Amino acid sequence: MSANSYTVAELADRFGLVAHGDAARVIDGVGTLAGAGPSQLTFLSNSKYAGQLAGTRAGVVVLREADLAQCPGAALIARDPYVAYATIAALFEHLPAAPAGIHPSAVVASTARVSPSASIGPCSVVEADAVIEDGVVLGPHCVIGEGCVVGAQSRLVARVTLVTRVTLGKRVLVHPGAVIGSDGFGLAFDRDHWIKLPQLGGVRIGDDCEIGANTTIDRGALDDTVLEEDVRLDNQIQIAHNVTIGAHTALAGCAAVAGSAKIGRYCMIGGNAGVLGHLELADRVTITAKSLVTHSIREPGEYSSGTPLQENRQWRKNAARFKHLDDYARRLAALEKDSSNE
Amino acid sequence: MSANSYTVAELADRFGLVAHGDAARVIDGVGTLAGAGPSQLTFLSNSKYAGQLAGTRAGVVVLREADLAQCPGAALIARDPYVAYATIAALFEHLPAAPAGIHPSAVVASTARVSPSASIGPCSVVEADAVIEDGVVLGPHCVIGEGCVVGAQSRLVARVTLVTRVTLGKRVLVHPGAVIGSDGFGLAFDRDHWIKLPQLGGVRIGDDCEIGANTTIDRGALDDTVLEEDVRLDNQIQIAHNVTIGAHTALAGCAAVAGSAKIGRYCMIGGNAGVLGHLELADRVTITAKSLVTHSIREPGEYSSGTPLQENRQWRKNAARFKHLDDYARRLAALEKDSSNE
Amino acid sequence: MSANSYTVAELADRFGLVAHGDAARVIDGVGTLAGAGPSQLTFLSNSKYAGQLAGTRAGVVVLREADLAQCPGAALIARDPYVAYATIAALFEHLPAAPAGIHPSAVVASTARVSPSASIGPCSVVEADAVIEDGVVLGPHCVIGEGCVVGAQSRLVARVTLVTRVTLGKRVLVHPGAVIGSDGFGLAFDRDHWIKLPQLGGVRIGDDCEIGANTTIDRGALDDTVLEEDVRLDNQIQIAHNVTIGAHTALAGCAAVAGSAKIGRYCMIGGNAGVLGHLELADRVTITAKSLVTHSIREPGEYSSGTPLQENRQWRKNAARFKHLDDYARRLAALEKDSSNE
Repeated sequence: MSANSYTVAELADRFGLVAHGDAARVIDGVGTLAGAGPSQLTFLSNSKYAGQLAGTRAGVVVLREADLAQCPGAALIARDPYVAYATIAALFEHLPAAPAGIHPSAVVASTARVSPSASIGPCSVVEADAVIEDGVVLGPHCVIGEGCVVGAQSRLVARVTLVTRVTLGKRVLVHPGAVIGSDGFGLAFDRDHWIKLPQLGGVRIGDDCEIGANTTIDRGALDDTVLEEDVRLDNQIQIAHNVTIGAHTALAGCAAVAGSAKIGRYCMIGGNAGVLGHLELADRVTITAKSLVTHSIREPGEYSSGTPLQENRQWRKNAARFKHLDDYARRLAALEKDSSNE
Repeated sequence: MSANSYTVAELADRFGLVAHGDAARVIDGVGTLAGAGPSQLTFLSNSKYAGQLAGTRAGVVVLREADLAQCPGAALIARDPYVAYATIAALFEHLPAAPAGIHPSAVVASTARVSPSASIGPCSVVEADAVIEDGVVLGPHCVIGEGCVVGAQSRLVARVTLVTRVTLGKRVLVHPGAVIGSDGFGLAFDRDHWIKLPQLGGVRIGDDCEIGANTTIDRGALDDTVLEEDVRLDNQIQIAHNVTIGAHTALAGCAAVAGSAKIGRYCMIGGNAGVLGHLELADRVTITAKSLVTHSIREPGEYSSGTPLQENRQWRKNAARFKHLDDYARRLAALEKDSSNE
Repeated sequence: MSANSYTVAELADRFGLVAHGDAARVIDGVGTLAGAGPSQLTFLSNSKYAGQLAGTRAGVVVLREADLAQCPGAALIARDPYVAYATIAALFEHLPAAPAGIHPSAVVASTARVSPSASIGPCSVVEADAVIEDGVVLGPHCVIGEGCVVGAQSRLVARVTLVTRVTLGKRVLVHPGAVIGSDGFGLAFDRDHWIKLPQLGGVRIGDDCEIGANTTIDRGALDDTVLEEDVRLDNQIQIAHNVTIGAHTALAGCAAVAGSAKIGRYCMIGGNAGVLGHLELADRVTITAKSLVTHSIREPGEYSSGTPLQENRQWRKNAARFKHLDDYARRLAALEKDSSNE
């Protein structure tokens, strides 16, 4: 598809890698070890796939020096083949054209400041006092609420809503359906009904963050909700008001973080994991999928909750016993006491 | 509401069922056993509701022959009354008018190919090289990204986004807020920060699939994410990149499937259940609600994880004991050894 | 930011509170105990923060009489400082201007009835026979389907979709990305494929409800899905067809309720908790985060499921033992029997 093509030598040069084999071979795309053809680049990173190396038809393979001997064709040697591949593959990505300027169907308030180099897509709405910096791409159907700021080179793919008091840093990538700056869920119970707490804070998103499709990030009640730089959120994640997420932390799909929780840097939160409100997680904490964090975590490491999957009939028996675990523990202790008294 | 009406005899004829009782009765709608009136059709499928049959005021009841004796009025005999009801009830569904043609507020790229019989709703956007086949209905606020294909007779109810390299089969029904073809969550960690892996694959959705509201389906990293025909996804489901879901499999609300998992045909995944990445599930596997699948499943059957609901005070005691289960098991074995040595 | 300002005496008067200290002080905003400045109001409700009171720089503090002695400046005495704060803070909320009338980019069907006092935002679509009552604000990109009713003074912040047969009461607040009235997930299995059950019911939402961002509420199969008044739904909640939720019940983010479940009044459902289909929950039931309700609950109280978070290595050992819990229980009983026989 891509009009881009490069020789193996050109790729080696551009990315500072050492080439082996046919350096004149022309590469015009990427593929998997098993599927790549003679004009495509592939990579070997996970040793699980090493068995596929000898049979690959790829034009060139990015790999570690240790794997070179098994490679049937051209190779590019990388310390970390996965990282090198990610960087090279970006050459072959085709992004839709996004011409600078405002599409005639877009609605831009007269007090909004839109850089002439920004692209405002069809039916997008930019409200009063919003700021759209240089090189920003708003795809179709974005809504940029009053006073929000979209930092330079950010890309809102389509149908992204920034509600109010939201500031995105530079090079932030937001996927369709994401809602940033919606009201936090703040309620006070007044005898027999709820009263809403106005949500007067905002949201600050650092440079190089990525926000997945249909993810929601509420604005703060008084202070801001904050994502530091290079935070990576997958799809359908829920970030409640006044949460802080440290730089370089990644959350997998459907994870949720409750109000005022503070997550450290370089954390990894698994799919559908949850963090209760007001907790703190240290740097470099990993939470496995579907676990619920119910207390603050002071030490780096990997944490989990839940029970293993079993065939339903066996699981039912075990689950029923869980309801009596406290009783069993007491009875076990009693037996031990009896036994030691004998 | 519906202008449609049919006699019991006409319904019997049209759907190949045997009528009993007043075959000339006119039916103009459907209702529940308890709520249907004399011009409405209802059904009895679940024996749990058999007690309501004698008292029903419905004009006609779709039921099994065995239940006929208890039916106070007209009846239509069906092998599977639920299936027969589903088919008949479609007669009484009112879909909003969707006139062929492009609404003046829609934005359609000059290189898009839109069938003259398709209906493109208000504010919908169809980008370059997209293909909209015969009889397709795009409701308001849909975005069809560059090069996407919407198969004949498909209906995108409203505000559906197809990002890029998405192909929908025929008669696919997509509910509002769904995002198909968003970037997979692919990241490589480069010493102290993340690098994004370009997501160069697409999404292929088979004929007769249904995609729920606010569901997200990412496109593949290199190969495609695939749903075979007649896959049924409820609301707020997350399908990660390179997942494959076999034909006739259904996922209930808030289920999530991680990257490169391969789910078989005729599977049933319960609400908020999760499947970890790279796993394989055989055909006809059922996963109960909120379970987490942590290993591949080779045999058909029903699988579960989790613990039962209890009153919180009792649950706390048991949950605290869970943290020592390994210790208890060892102590139990030690006691048994002692006991057998005596 | 806000142009609004009030003296402490004016606030006392307006909200029926007793002022202490400098009643002439001018207040023009709100802040936290730790962060509020001399022209801002704050509050002390949770005793956890009592230590911050002596050091606060806030212009006035809303607090209980018992805490007055520790307050360094002006104070307003309230029986429930959190509720009083919520009410006062609303004075300082700035909502975007929403001028009455229909934005030129909106698309309103000729048969829709739109109150002259309603505000229809950019690119919003109001379809045939819809009713938009007095003082309603539809932000940008809302879609109001055929025949839907939006009650007086309701506010749909942006990009809200009401599909069909949806009625919102008065003062309903709906956040971006919410989808109300989408098809319920009703399927009948016909030998080797699925048949869709038409979803012929609607959705009725009571007065003063709040619906979070990207939340989905399906319409009923035959009868309606119902939220009584003052129900509060956080973000990314899934409400299936024919669910009923009693007045004043609140659900936290990512909770899900399956089809035909009936939840009582004044319930609290924690984040990512689930309720299976056809269950009934009494009034004043609390479900803790991530719990799964698998049976009806007849008594008020707090209920939970799940296991506690542990360091992964220890958790793995315990989780592996869970698979044998039934066996352990039997062996424990056998040992007890042996022991009592000795």
